[in-house]
Amino acid sequence: MRVPRGFRFAGVCCGIKPSGRPDLALIVAESPCAAAGVFTRNRFCGAPVTITRRHLRDGRARAVVINSGVANVATGRQGLEDAKAMCAMVAERLGCKPTEVLVASTGVIGPRLPMDKIERGIASAVAELRPSKAAMMYAAEAILTTDTRSKTYGVRSNGVTLGGMAKGSGMIAPDMATMLGFLVTDARLQPDRVRRLLRSACDQSFNRISVDSDTSTSDMVLMLASGAARSAVAADDVDACCSSLSQQVLCDGEGTTRVFDVRIEGARSVAEADRVGRAIVNSPLVKTAVHGGDPNWGRFMMAVGKSGVAINPAKVSLSVGSPRGIALLSLGEPVVLNTKQQARVERLMRADRVGFVVDLGRGDVGVTWSGSDLSYEYVRINAEYTT
Amino acid sequence: MRVPRGFRFAGVCCGIKPSGRPDLALIVAESPCAAAGVFTRNRFCGAPVTITRRHLRDGRARAVVINSGVANVATGRQGLEDAKAMCAMVAERLGCKPTEVLVASTGVIGPRLPMDKIERGIASAVAELRPSKAAMMYAAEAILTTDTRSKTYGVRSNGVTLGGMAKGSGMIAPDMATMLGFLVTDARLQPDRVRRLLRSACDQSFNRISVDSDTSTSDMVLMLASGAARSAVAADDVDACCSSLSQQVLCDGEGTTRVFDVRIEGARSVAEADRVGRAIVNSPLVKTAVHGGDPNWGRFMMAVGKSGVAINPAKVSLSVGSPRGIALLSLGEPVVLNTKQQARVERLMRADRVGFVVDLGRGDVGVTWSGSDLSYEYVRINAEYTT
Repeated sequence: MRVPRGFRFAGVCCGIKPSGRPDLALIVAESPCAAAGVFTRNRFCGAPVTITRRHLRDGRARAVVINSGVANVATGRQGLEDAKAMCAMVAERLGCKPTEVLVASTGVIGPRLPMDKIERGIASAVAELRPSKAAMMYAAEAILTTDTRSKTYGVRSNGVTLGGMAKGSGMIAPDMATMLGFLVTDARLQPDRVRRLLRSACDQSFNRISVDSDTSTSDMVLMLASGAARSAVAADDVDACCSSLSQQVLCDGEGTTRVFDVRIEGARSVAEADRVGRAIVNSPLVKTAVHGGDPNWGRFMMAVGKSGVAINPAKVSLSVGSPRGIALLSLGEPVVLNTKQQARVERLMRADRVGFVVDLGRGDVGVTWSGSDLSYEYVRINAEYTT
Repeated sequence: MRVPRGFRFAGVCCGIKPSGRPDLALIVAESPCAAAGVFTRNRFCGAPVTITRRHLRDGRARAVVINSGVANVATGRQGLEDAKAMCAMVAERLGCKPTEVLVASTGVIGPRLPMDKIERGIASAVAELRPSKAAMMYAAEAILTTDTRSKTYGVRSNGVTLGGMAKGSGMIAPDMATMLGFLVTDARLQPDRVRRLLRSACDQSFNRISVDSDTSTSDMVLMLASGAARSAVAADDVDACCSSLSQQVLCDGEGTTRVFDVRIEGARSVAEADRVGRAIVNSPLVKTAVHGGDPNWGRFMMAVGKSGVAINPAKVSLSVGSPRGIALLSLGEPVVLNTKQQARVERLMRADRVGFVVDLGRGDVGVTWSGSDLSYEYVRINAEYTT
């Protein structure tokens, strides 16, 4: 992974996490970047979401400061003051305005941020800022919570470099698993263009995965474009970056033993294909069937039926395995499988990753959603944790 | 439980279930009743739902035939013919029109109904019809699938008798757990009035419980009023019947170890209170917290925030235990508990049934939702089952 020009990174231990693992990251641009963000739609959003939204109003940013260990959510007025103070601490040391600094926090909900530790962490992170791949990897490490590995992506094409990092155990971690993503590029882009590129890429990636149906209070994906490369970044590269990061998040979901993809075809619009996809990957009955390796197509049809889309059951088909799968339901009628086909279905269902195709028979629009299974481990992790 | 006048019941073994348990029930009125139904909103609904809806168009019915073991769902055109044939078999023996007979099926999805067994079962059920409590209990037994006990309710007031029976392991059984409910009364009512009474009672009961967020393809609740008592039934009694049956279904949910009630207060409308209630009782993170006895209020706030209602976090409060609970979050700020309070919260959370109150601080409307926890057992049951 190459480092986009015009950026420096740092990841340090400031002592928020009891484990002594890195917990504070800085991403700093040499000069103000065109910047945009995509945020959680949860109304109970954390203080950093409120402050970062506000600081992005002008579409410009110099730096991002991120801490893990404490989420600064449900912390009332004090939480907003703390998030602003983090921006001010960074701004003071970089010699920029506090509104040019964006902030993100992930971890436990409820407690106040330990501001003395944060301040010492910011001081040492500023001292360690480097424009190197190693520094970028340290930053990617410092934003993790219950993740088992860091998630990064890098691409260089036509002289433009794009790098990304993300964290997230798929919305399911004990501390409610914030999903954070940060994309940095040396492309030259207007803020509006950054916004559109990021929104479109997120809609096709982070917004089409599900570990459970819950929405974190802290989710955000930010993108900064320094302009040092003097040309634009390809939309395909932004899409590929978000797609790769979101799949890394999905596969690292706590309790995940198997991932499944559902291709929705034959929809009249992307919106209705998304409704069906979301209903399927969020269904506990579908998720437990996938966990058990059970080709229980009735559950898929149940989820299609409850999605709210006005499907005609007699036009719906389902197959497992893609691109050349085995039909389980054809135009609303169950397919009788021979022994050989049954054996193949069982093999497909036992794989680490299993694909399904649902054809709604209504139009010609298709999208793909991905989900993780629902396992004993998911219940254990989320039942045994105590705030 | 007294038996409403004008009705006879039967429950028999016809051999659909391999276990030899009763699997065919009949409810027959002496003359056509005012009747109404509430049905699943799942578009992939079963053939019996389609046929029963059709037969209820005139608001009149003489009989209901119910089988368990096979759901007659996703059976295509043949399934519709089979459901119609069941009505015709009953009508022939009672000397009424097939359109005066309603039909419900619950069990495995996909296979065709064994029509020869059904026909023999209907013949012996008609022979065994009795206007007795014992016969009503046999019928209540014959509609069960994975339920561990039958669910019934009876009330007599002002000379009017109302009886009810239901089945359902809370939408979560391996075969996708149809929820069925049947109310019979000797009250004299117009069909429109039956419809309104039933709809209102279901909205406050069956529609405010959740085991998972999935919607069966076969759910229906039917109500028949024979008119033999010459006066109306109290709306309160219909509400109480549906409330009792729905709570019996919830407590018998497979894998359920603990039930929780969430009182939503301070909403602007019933619709918005319902949105918040649904988001909370459907949230896997809330359900696993309840399973673990964890007073993780952050998860409740996450669910409130994702409900889509435009709440102001600074006006939201949460307490555990009701009616006099312990505040965990007060006007958006976490409450610091002393040791004694913490111990009381832990005790409350370990009970078989735990209550929460969420105040949205927006208005003065309140509703109560109930849910079951998400347990290892839920995952085991639903992962290990193979169609």
